[in-house]
Amino acid sequence: LNRIKASGLKLRFCTNETQATREKFVKKLQGMGFDISVAEVTAPAPAACRILKERSLRPHLLVHNDLVPEFAEIDKTNPNCVVIGDAAENFTYANLNEAFRVLIGMEKPVLISLGRGRYYKETDGLKLDVGAYMKALEYACDVQAEVVGKPAKMFFESALAEMGVPPQQAIMIGDDIVNDVGGAQRCGMRALQVRTGKYRPCDENHPHVKPDAYVNNLAEAVDIILQQL
Amino acid sequence: LNRIKASGLKLRFCTNETQATREKFVKKLQGMGFDISVAEVTAPAPAACRILKERSLRPHLLVHNDLVPEFAEIDKTNPNCVVIGDAAENFTYANLNEAFRVLIGMEKPVLISLGRGRYYKETDGLKLDVGAYMKALEYACDVQAEVVGKPAKMFFESALAEMGVPPQQAIMIGDDIVNDVGGAQRCGMRALQVRTGKYRPCDENHPHVKPDAYVNNLAEAVDIILQQL
Repeated sequence: LNRIKASGLKLRFCTNETQATREKFVKKLQGMGFDISVAEVTAPAPAACRILKERSLRPHLLVHNDLVPEFAEIDKTNPNCVVIGDAAENFTYANLNEAFRVLIGMEKPVLISLGRGRYYKETDGLKLDVGAYMKALEYACDVQAEVVGKPAKMFFESALAEMGVPPQQAIMIGDDIVNDVGGAQRCGMRALQVRTGKYRPCDENHPHVKPDAYVNNLAEAVDIILQQL
Repeated sequence: LNRIKASGLKLRFCTNETQATREKFVKKLQGMGFDISVAEVTAPAPAACRILKERSLRPHLLVHNDLVPEFAEIDKTNPNCVVIGDAAENFTYANLNEAFRVLIGMEKPVLISLGRGRYYKETDGLKLDVGAYMKALEYACDVQAEVVGKPAKMFFESALAEMGVPPQQAIMIGDDIVNDVGGAQRCGMRALQVRTGKYRPCDENHPHVKPDAYVNNLAEAVDIILQQL
């Protein structure tokens, strides 16, 4: 990271994290020794806030308690859309029914989903991710959710706009073959897959997505990028 | 009902009720004055039990507490499938994650759903039905649920087999254009739609399903049927 910053290249962190504010997320990474600030992070919640403001949408939130501060400046009275994130313990029967009732009560239901992940692993086991609950509401209301976050094209475009860089001059580094690599490529960027994190060897046989290159870790990605300057 | 029984016609009650045992369901209808017994009822849970036995499946149950007795004789140790019904208050975050973990842990996940309803109305408002939670698990596990209950063809075939009647000689009377009328017709039966219960005038413009006739109520359906004997 320090070598990229020293080279003068523009840098942006793109995360699908929706269980915490950017502040909390950044603190965690700083604690691990990374040179990162809130202003360098592109995350689903602020991207959703931009959409809400642009379209004068007032959300009913079904999100994690720790994410609520990201929506502090958004008018939430008399909701005309539902925003769903990885609400975790907030995915109760009562809360799901409530979000459903808000949606089904609209003439044209608007559902915005902060990601479409299927599941993830925590120390106490696998958990259903936001995508599963998004599908439940989609089916019940016969509506298609608008997904904010990787791999949505709009999400990468936001990150590019924030840097002021065209997609042809940007490169994505990520461990998720579909959300990171596939999403960035569909946006016109090049993408490196690191063989760390959630990488699995079978990713290299993915039926649709082929990274521009594989690297064993982030340091190797930086080597390649700096060599080509 | 009494006129149909007196005529000697065979009769079967087909319900998608999965919040109670057939015993409880029948008691409720008896309390309303209907001449009905448990042996005359075709319901999703016993249909699922037949499938479980035939295929040596041991279910993990995600169902309403009041439905559990229907599975009393089924081996539930070391589950190799998940059966989901309208679990209502049992649709907790913890229970959904548990059912998901059982499914995703299988080499080839088997998900049996007692219906595919989207939502229903109770005195305290609209509630998400089993179909929504089925979709959540389907998406998370990349699996297609096997649906037991109306409008599944197999469900109507069970009812016909229990009466010993071929579909051409049977007629369905129901208020649900898709689940009752459409399901029965796809099975080769004729079907009457009653203009009571969940019937809505827009049902008469349904894009795919056309009943063999409309009747204003159950008594009128019986009139028509007895006239044609």
